[in-house]
Amino acid sequence: MSLAESSVRTTSDVAAEMAAIGHAAREAARKLATAPTEEKNRALLAMASAIRRDEAAILAANARDLAAMKRTPGTNEAFINRLTLTSARVEAMAKGIEEIADLPDPVGAVIAAWDRPNGLHIERIRTPLGVIGIIYESRPNVTADAGALCLKAGNAAILRGGSDSFNSTEAIHRCMVEGLAAAGLPEASIQIVPTRDRSAVGMMLSGLDGSIDVIVPRGGRSLVERVQSEARVPVFAHLEGVCHVYIDKAANLEMAKSIVVNAKMRRVEVCGSAETLLVDRAIAAAYLPPLVEALRAAGCAIRGDEATRAILADVTPATETDWYTEYLDAIIAVKVVDGVDAAIDHIEHYGSHHTDAIVTDDQAAADRFLSGVDSAIVLHNASTQFADGGEFGMGAEIGIATGKMHARGPVGVEQLTSFKYRVRGSGQTRP
Amino acid sequence: MSLAESSVRTTSDVAAEMAAIGHAAREAARKLATAPTEEKNRALLAMASAIRRDEAAILAANARDLAAMKRTPGTNEAFINRLTLTSARVEAMAKGIEEIADLPDPVGAVIAAWDRPNGLHIERIRTPLGVIGIIYESRPNVTADAGALCLKAGNAAILRGGSDSFNSTEAIHRCMVEGLAAAGLPEASIQIVPTRDRSAVGMMLSGLDGSIDVIVPRGGRSLVERVQSEARVPVFAHLEGVCHVYIDKAANLEMAKSIVVNAKMRRVEVCGSAETLLVDRAIAAAYLPPLVEALRAAGCAIRGDEATRAILADVTPATETDWYTEYLDAIIAVKVVDGVDAAIDHIEHYGSHHTDAIVTDDQAAADRFLSGVDSAIVLHNASTQFADGGEFGMGAEIGIATGKMHARGPVGVEQLTSFKYRVRGSGQTRP
Repeated sequence: MSLAESSVRTTSDVAAEMAAIGHAAREAARKLATAPTEEKNRALLAMASAIRRDEAAILAANARDLAAMKRTPGTNEAFINRLTLTSARVEAMAKGIEEIADLPDPVGAVIAAWDRPNGLHIERIRTPLGVIGIIYESRPNVTADAGALCLKAGNAAILRGGSDSFNSTEAIHRCMVEGLAAAGLPEASIQIVPTRDRSAVGMMLSGLDGSIDVIVPRGGRSLVERVQSEARVPVFAHLEGVCHVYIDKAANLEMAKSIVVNAKMRRVEVCGSAETLLVDRAIAAAYLPPLVEALRAAGCAIRGDEATRAILADVTPATETDWYTEYLDAIIAVKVVDGVDAAIDHIEHYGSHHTDAIVTDDQAAADRFLSGVDSAIVLHNASTQFADGGEFGMGAEIGIATGKMHARGPVGVEQLTSFKYRVRGSGQTRP
Repeated sequence: MSLAESSVRTTSDVAAEMAAIGHAAREAARKLATAPTEEKNRALLAMASAIRRDEAAILAANARDLAAMKRTPGTNEAFINRLTLTSARVEAMAKGIEEIADLPDPVGAVIAAWDRPNGLHIERIRTPLGVIGIIYESRPNVTADAGALCLKAGNAAILRGGSDSFNSTEAIHRCMVEGLAAAGLPEASIQIVPTRDRSAVGMMLSGLDGSIDVIVPRGGRSLVERVQSEARVPVFAHLEGVCHVYIDKAANLEMAKSIVVNAKMRRVEVCGSAETLLVDRAIAAAYLPPLVEALRAAGCAIRGDEATRAILADVTPATETDWYTEYLDAIIAVKVVDGVDAAIDHIEHYGSHHTDAIVTDDQAAADRFLSGVDSAIVLHNASTQFADGGEFGMGAEIGIATGKMHARGPVGVEQLTSFKYRVRGSGQTRP
């Protein structure tokens, strides 16, 4: 069905259509769960080839999306940038899919194995999650990345991209389906929601009557917030990254400067960017001036608590709100704290359980911080900007999760699986 | 506050009280997360001692619960049996807690570790889940089991037992708190909901404003159904165990008889009891008569499909409903299927993804079944009644989960944890 027709459909049409999508996804997931690695990889490589071959068609579809968007008054630059595809971005999509083909297949891997006194051999083995719903903004490349990652882990995907990117999404999706068909895998393994109707999102969040196992939102805070509050199925996501760097009294000053500047300024718009700098009172007078100087030299604005301003009078005062804020900008909040325990208390109170770092040469202080901070990623003597599946060596990631269910931290191909117990016996019955 | 006062409280009183419980649990969970193994074990052993010492008081409290219940018309026998404590049951509670103290501490264990080319050392380590809400029927022993298991895994517990067991629960809980205090751990590590007001359950299901991380329902189908449909936080549970035994054409008949009779009849009321017997058409005429004879000899009633009745005319006809039914009784549904793929199709269509077994001497058929059946536990040549944390060698379990999030299958102390990434560097910044 073409997208043009979608506007005349009623909500009950949409409900029927979404139910059919859910049913087809579940059927496809059953086949994918036992699909051999070679078939999945063959599909991925065929997708990459089709995307390269169809570059012109994909860019033309994208141009139609962009033209429609530019007629909408008040569209911001960042939004247009995310929507825009170029020859280089199309190539990056194809390359990304090939890299996913290169990853080891997590399905069927034995996570743990043991024997029982009665001779039973028990294994915990990785299985796909089933059907993953991905809800994203108008970033067409997510169609390729997320679809490919789900497939590698043996999952069916239901993709619902932003309505402003529908033509681009459709063009990319066509290549994905071609790849599936080339490998003899069900075409419903990767489906897009073929309607702009917003009620489709609500239906996905309710789990399509048991047809969706997990929802992954990809986008800004408001999207994630809606998904987290409305979803009736598990969600892999993080709402925000209020990340901290704590400089302990036993930190090496040069390392502290280098890590803080990198953690804040390497890219200010990513979730692993540091938003608050905590400095041990014992070395605040000595360390704060060079730390702040290095941050300012990199273009960062500083907001400090009273103790910081007692040392550096020209620092803007921080308010209570600053400690909760994910600036995603060249701004950092600075606070002086009474040692590692006070740093942990601050992080547990104001942080978002995403990624936090300590800089210190004192192993005991590091251990205390690493065990006391309840975040998905805790680092010792390294930058918070390493919060990334690629940097963790996982290959591609579908996002970073702060939930405590099994996908916490970078969500790569392995995290898109569950497990089951496989028990081999020789006729054992239970007394 | 005594339970007698609870009846005069309003819903907003309950809301304030539950919020305070949630807040105290979260605070306690922070302390428990880094509590040394010795402290947790000391608390557990002190709890067991206090329970043994207070046997008379616990039995007296239980007698008050029983007396009140017997005044309620129409109370059934099974319900009274679950509520009733005896000297032996009190001892079993104390013993159970001591066994939990003996289990290895899962918190802090390194699940996986690897190094990156830039020298970063990354570890995935086990962490507690946080605060676990347990909602159970009038079975006082759950207060001890569940509270102790949560504590061992570093979690705070909020326990809401059936209102008919309030006096018993309170008496047991007093011993648990005494144990916590003896080890210097926060008394709010294990709290009971001190009201019979049903709105408290709804508040727990909504997560107490972020204070509860996971809900575990312990009880019958209607309780689990309510919890699964209303909970706004993850739930570790299974709704039912429609478990299957498939007898393949390459099965040894004696083994098949022994496994089927055990899987069905060892205890018919447990979730791992088999409800449906699937028999390969190739050996149905030869195997069905002795299989049915063995089941009948053990006291089991048989309901069969047409093909079964063509072989054994005296079998009661099975209806479509039978294939979905968890009898929890001495009844089994029998169906003839066309080999392993048809068995998998039947199980995926009618099963509950709990526990399913194949009996065969053909390794290829076994592998196909073990990978094709998407259940938490799949067994080859062993009884479905092994679906149990103790039988898996996990020690105590808080239940069996059929969800695909990380606690799938028996939920023991290790499954009551999450993990985080601990990253050790030497000053690495991200290029």
